[in-house]
Amino acid sequence: MRIETSRNTERIGSVTINDVQKVLELDSGRAKELPVEEKIAVQKIEQDVIKDIEKKMAIVVPIKDEKVKLFEGVISGIPHECPIIVLSNSRRRRVDHFKMERDTLNQFCHFTGRQALIIHQKDPSLAQALEEAGYPDLLAEDGRVREGKAEGMLVSMLIAMMMKKQYVGFIDADNYFPGAVWEYAKCYASGFAMTKSPYTMVRILWHYKPKMSRGVYFKKWGRVSQVINKCLNSLISAKTGFESEIIKTGNAGEHAMTLKLARELPYASGYAVEPQELISILEMYGGILPPDRTKAAKHGVEICQIETRNPHFHEEKGWRHRQGMLSLGLGAIYYSPLCGGETKKVILGELRQQEAVGQEEEPAQPRLYPPLKQIDLQKFAEIMQEHMSSYSLPEEKE
Amino acid sequence: MRIETSRNTERIGSVTINDVQKVLELDSGRAKELPVEEKIAVQKIEQDVIKDIEKKMAIVVPIKDEKVKLFEGVISGIPHECPIIVLSNSRRRRVDHFKMERDTLNQFCHFTGRQALIIHQKDPSLAQALEEAGYPDLLAEDGRVREGKAEGMLVSMLIAMMMKKQYVGFIDADNYFPGAVWEYAKCYASGFAMTKSPYTMVRILWHYKPKMSRGVYFKKWGRVSQVINKCLNSLISAKTGFESEIIKTGNAGEHAMTLKLARELPYASGYAVEPQELISILEMYGGILPPDRTKAAKHGVEICQIETRNPHFHEEKGWRHRQGMLSLGLGAIYYSPLCGGETKKVILGELRQQEAVGQEEEPAQPRLYPPLKQIDLQKFAEIMQEHMSSYSLPEEKE
Repeated sequence: MRIETSRNTERIGSVTINDVQKVLELDSGRAKELPVEEKIAVQKIEQDVIKDIEKKMAIVVPIKDEKVKLFEGVISGIPHECPIIVLSNSRRRRVDHFKMERDTLNQFCHFTGRQALIIHQKDPSLAQALEEAGYPDLLAEDGRVREGKAEGMLVSMLIAMMMKKQYVGFIDADNYFPGAVWEYAKCYASGFAMTKSPYTMVRILWHYKPKMSRGVYFKKWGRVSQVINKCLNSLISAKTGFESEIIKTGNAGEHAMTLKLARELPYASGYAVEPQELISILEMYGGILPPDRTKAAKHGVEICQIETRNPHFHEEKGWRHRQGMLSLGLGAIYYSPLCGGETKKVILGELRQQEAVGQEEEPAQPRLYPPLKQIDLQKFAEIMQEHMSSYSLPEEKE
Repeated sequence: MRIETSRNTERIGSVTINDVQKVLELDSGRAKELPVEEKIAVQKIEQDVIKDIEKKMAIVVPIKDEKVKLFEGVISGIPHECPIIVLSNSRRRRVDHFKMERDTLNQFCHFTGRQALIIHQKDPSLAQALEEAGYPDLLAEDGRVREGKAEGMLVSMLIAMMMKKQYVGFIDADNYFPGAVWEYAKCYASGFAMTKSPYTMVRILWHYKPKMSRGVYFKKWGRVSQVINKCLNSLISAKTGFESEIIKTGNAGEHAMTLKLARELPYASGYAVEPQELISILEMYGGILPPDRTKAAKHGVEICQIETRNPHFHEEKGWRHRQGMLSLGLGAIYYSPLCGGETKKVILGELRQQEAVGQEEEPAQPRLYPPLKQIDLQKFAEIMQEHMSSYSLPEEKE
């Protein structure tokens, strides 16, 4: 893979945010020395470097009632070296969607010689393991894991830690193009190869997003992403005193982290999870609030934003979905202690204009989960291990 | 890349046609021995094998006034090892589209350290080279190369021969997904890796083709492809006496050949070119007409049909384009000496139903070009070499 060198970097305390780097070439061929003059503008990440990282990078596919055909395509695009974790919250009544997903994944593993894990979010053993390992925050009143994609993400990060992986990357199950999925995984690995800190996050910016209304129109920015980026940038600008447009992936569902970073951060529930990650990083390592004396602060936290070559073409979820994303995402920013009066005004303006909150109302505050490092990972692993054979694919033949 | 083993093969004289083989996994990781039981159903084509073939495989992108943004995406998806040949027939008056394409390609080559050729179909030196090397068939009355994608394909095959490449693969310039382009090239190389004969053709079957009408619908078969496949299969069934459905890629624009095979075949002009390739192979090596005593007949000709994982998402050209494709494609079958009365009836029925020909009319006969081996390749190369610096990119800095 060949990627632009980052030409602009924002430094806030121990946090380094790189401006968007574009993918120039999907497949940059065999290892060869780059001539010096090329290196100034371009980074080539060799296949072997990527594959070494892929082996240590769990790819998590959160799924909830997505079409099984789409799911099948998505998993076929994940590079062979990456272990796959599917975290499903699909319906099991009447038609057992979870079973369909499990069978599809099993068939795929069977024919490709791969191994994967698939776990249902409402699995009782999972809830028990969380409870006993001292992380009951994720559980609802019925004793099962709460609803929500964020909750599924947290569970899958714990599983990746339990598998002793070094990185975790998220890819949605509703993507129409296996080739785009493949590129996301390559971008994650390339991002980790380019950054130096063991506390790194890679966030994806889609090249375009095709919209279908009388022919195809390639939109660069979704409305929700635009507003969330604007508000995050307003927060950063107010703190540094220099107007900044550095954040272009505030709402990126497609993103990856080193597990060292993943275990340090508090997470928001629901659609607030992706912007909250950035907020958490800025709160903990931005040097504005009382500093966190962890190793992460010493090493510094790096954020990489990579623009894919492939457009992002996925299932449309409708405006209600978008409005939910907007108000929860902005809520995460609004309630941060970093958020000043100026930024709060911008957020309220946006939300009122979209009629997402009333004239005198404030946005809802997203639920916050404590950092995953609070869990007794060994205890969690012990309980999960007992049931591992029912999560692992391919199924063993009798 | 991991691909299904072909489970059904049709043998007609020295021609072997394999049934469709599906891609199972885009990226099958590092080289590892396949366990024996897996080998029965699946073929894994190792990266190094693919890359060795890519180096010898010119990828030809025929282009005519396609959007430059799309073209830019397409070339970014072509694997680094493949030499690129762009054969443009774009407008040069008022806005010089050819120059835009050339500049885009030049920038791409500059930043990725690649080399490419771009030639305009109406280039006078090209016409002169064809004339003097004894292949004037491609020239129109104005002394330039004729209009048409097929004509551009013929020129680019000659250039690939001149570059001493072993394979040539075609990829259209109107594809929305660089990741799909990447997969086509991998499929071509995998096809050549799987077949044994030096006279091989690889044809692509798209997994799906998204249609936009109130949401997205994934169509498996286009109407034109369906009819052309039906008529080709009718022709084969009549000759073998066993009803066959083997041909599923009769109209595949995305296809590749060994240049050894490419130089032997007569080609049709216009949209008839792809079905005619199959007709030419059956006529020459099918053992029905008086046999051709070439090496190809001795080695046997293999046709591989590969179904991609990615959908094919490209610019819509409208029904007139489709009707043109249908009547020219069927014309190629209709006028073959292999085509019996039964198949002719089927063809006329289809064409009349579509109102592509009148009730008493027959389809137009496509123009046929003689095999490329008739050209004096050395002479052609000599003349082209004189102008090579103006075709080669990146441009040299002064």
